[in-house]
Amino acid sequence: MVNKIDHIAIVVKDADKALKLYSEMFGFKAVEKMDGPGGEFKAVLVRAGDITLEFLQPLKEGTAFARFLAERGGGLHHVSFATDDIAGELKKLRAQGRQLQNEEPMELPEAKIAFIHPSAAENVLIELVQRG
Amino acid sequence: MVNKIDHIAIVVKDADKALKLYSEMFGFKAVEKMDGPGGEFKAVLVRAGDITLEFLQPLKEGTAFARFLAERGGGLHHVSFATDDIAGELKKLRAQGRQLQNEEPMELPEAKIAFIHPSAAENVLIELVQRG
Repeated sequence: MVNKIDHIAIVVKDADKALKLYSEMFGFKAVEKMDGPGGEFKAVLVRAGDITLEFLQPLKEGTAFARFLAERGGGLHHVSFATDDIAGELKKLRAQGRQLQNEEPMELPEAKIAFIHPSAAENVLIELVQRG
Repeated sequence: MVNKIDHIAIVVKDADKALKLYSEMFGFKAVEKMDGPGGEFKAVLVRAGDITLEFLQPLKEGTAFARFLAERGGGLHHVSFATDDIAGELKKLRAQGRQLQNEEPMELPEAKIAFIHPSAAENVLIELVQRG
């Protein structure tokens, strides 16, 4: 079941500067900072009330985030839906013939995630995430 | 105080088709259908659990939504943050010198809304909404 937004991801030039800006504007506070695999990007998760945003700062040229920043100047990148059964959701989507970027969940230390291809979802990149 | 996401808006070619797709994929159900002022667009609000999405279908050439659809093929358009004091939020943002699309809230039948210019918020178009 897909029933809440885990986070909204935003590609930015400078994640710490974005944190400072959103903190001043709306009171967001940093809850987690991470480095992406291979040093490709830096991620800063910020929260205000029930809202979680993820600022993604590309660190290497030629990556998807770097291209998004160069082509669009950054902005809304993907939306992440929380689910308690990511394997079941992916199975259902595969049975429907939807185009997935990950046929099976990727195992992160604290979550399982999978991306659905934008072409399957009205040009929106959707991440499914199962935590805990 | 900004503390929850009211909705995420997605520009689509056909809002009813988008509803059908997201319904099949994730169980979203339509909660409201509206026509924009001047017949410029059609909006369909859909919900799954705590997630509310707004599908925006441009109906007139030359409008912002129509250009977004033509240039990008649609997709994530803006994010709407709920607040219990939109006037206070706008006052704070004006005092900070942030670029706003609406200096004062627009009064809709069931909500007050205002947009912050993307140039003020890391290239993200943010709507503030106060309901009730």
